[in-house]
Amino acid sequence: MSPQKYIEVCFSPLLFPAALQGNEIIVVIDVLRASSSIAAAIGNGVKKIVPVAGIDECFSYREKGYLLAGERKGIKVSGFDLGNSPFDFMNANLKGAQIAMTTTNGTQAVQLAKNTDKVIFGCFLNLNYLVSWLQTQNQPIICLCAGWENKFNMEDTLFAGALVHHLKGHYGLSDNCDASIAAEQLYIAAKNDLYAFLENSSHRKRLAKLNIDEDVKYCLTPNQLQVIPIMENGAIVKLNPQHLEMPELNVHSIENK
Amino acid sequence: MSPQKYIEVCFSPLLFPAALQGNEIIVVIDVLRASSSIAAAIGNGVKKIVPVAGIDECFSYREKGYLLAGERKGIKVSGFDLGNSPFDFMNANLKGAQIAMTTTNGTQAVQLAKNTDKVIFGCFLNLNYLVSWLQTQNQPIICLCAGWENKFNMEDTLFAGALVHHLKGHYGLSDNCDASIAAEQLYIAAKNDLYAFLENSSHRKRLAKLNIDEDVKYCLTPNQLQVIPIMENGAIVKLNPQHLEMPELNVHSIENK
Repeated sequence: MSPQKYIEVCFSPLLFPAALQGNEIIVVIDVLRASSSIAAAIGNGVKKIVPVAGIDECFSYREKGYLLAGERKGIKVSGFDLGNSPFDFMNANLKGAQIAMTTTNGTQAVQLAKNTDKVIFGCFLNLNYLVSWLQTQNQPIICLCAGWENKFNMEDTLFAGALVHHLKGHYGLSDNCDASIAAEQLYIAAKNDLYAFLENSSHRKRLAKLNIDEDVKYCLTPNQLQVIPIMENGAIVKLNPQHLEMPELNVHSIENK
Repeated sequence: MSPQKYIEVCFSPLLFPAALQGNEIIVVIDVLRASSSIAAAIGNGVKKIVPVAGIDECFSYREKGYLLAGERKGIKVSGFDLGNSPFDFMNANLKGAQIAMTTTNGTQAVQLAKNTDKVIFGCFLNLNYLVSWLQTQNQPIICLCAGWENKFNMEDTLFAGALVHHLKGHYGLSDNCDASIAAEQLYIAAKNDLYAFLENSSHRKRLAKLNIDEDVKYCLTPNQLQVIPIMENGAIVKLNPQHLEMPELNVHSIENK
């Protein structure tokens, strides 16, 4: 195993600057729901998504022909075209669209990572496809959990743990930090029923008030999408990997929803 | 359960400022080895320990009659009287001593917490005794894991998880953060053999190079001490709780070592 090939997990954006060397692939993780919605959008043919931190900045994209998407505290921003549900992005009319997006935690994490070499987006929806691609790479990986207002959250940790678990044969663990060991242990405890494991988590309780249980169930169903969203010139687009074997999709594909 | 009574876990000192409201009991956790050594020292009759961040500041205490203790990168500072092994502090000659102490991570965490209401020190050595006392309190609790150079570490997390596990009937979990849920899950996975569970952790690997396996084994053996070190006027002293039932000590008491 190349010494370059290790995987590290940051449980909060606050822990990211100290972890970053500059040569890593950063996997931005905001399972509920930004990275899931981004994967759904790009998988559905959206041409590009510009992540922006603030609502005002987002509005400035309308005159450039962009659709506006995003939430605050889980609720669609007033005046925006789309919220933060992956189902919002599955409309056939969105093929080729350009979207400006702001979310409470996800796009803030992107801002933090945007000056690094490769920034991609991970979620359970594209787990196996992402794993297949990462196996072919030869750089360290940092899993950047968006968390909730810079705090640790469980669903992002579980996905980071899933990456560690599935990449262990190809990547070592960072010597500096036990977060990857912890994330994998939690994933192992949770993987047979992610939904039940997360029942007492703070974010599921928060989202329960929004009545978006279908979103949560979808976001926790692995392997619905064969897509990797990647940052290029400030926008999220579809990575077109060469020679990548397609892993099997989950039986519950988007078309079945 | 009083709404005041909740327990939160900070995996890194970097996450502490956002968690702090100001009315909490802060449990400083640096299992390998600062909080274990502090508990051993105070349990052995050391009168007080002044935690200082820097080595130079530590040396300035010598002329005030203090002994100097501490490490950098796990190794006793050259010219100091004592290192950071709990066994260093079990000498009968230390009864009544005043010690100035600096450690890589532990005393930095103390500095961060020093302006809060109550700062106490937790480790496996005083687990049950600490739990018994915390059960009688009526304030929120923050478990402040010292970590390693501000990164997540496993042994501090496991002890925070032990506190969550044993206090769950008396304290709720914070609604804002899943760290307490994660810490407890990891403790449950590890509790039957903490030593084996930590075998692959970064800090155990780091300490293995120092040949201090006896320290590690001792620090991971719960309930050796009936003592709670507490900050008072800038120094760590022995808390003298009233009407506190003494939980049973582990059969492997200090005297048997």
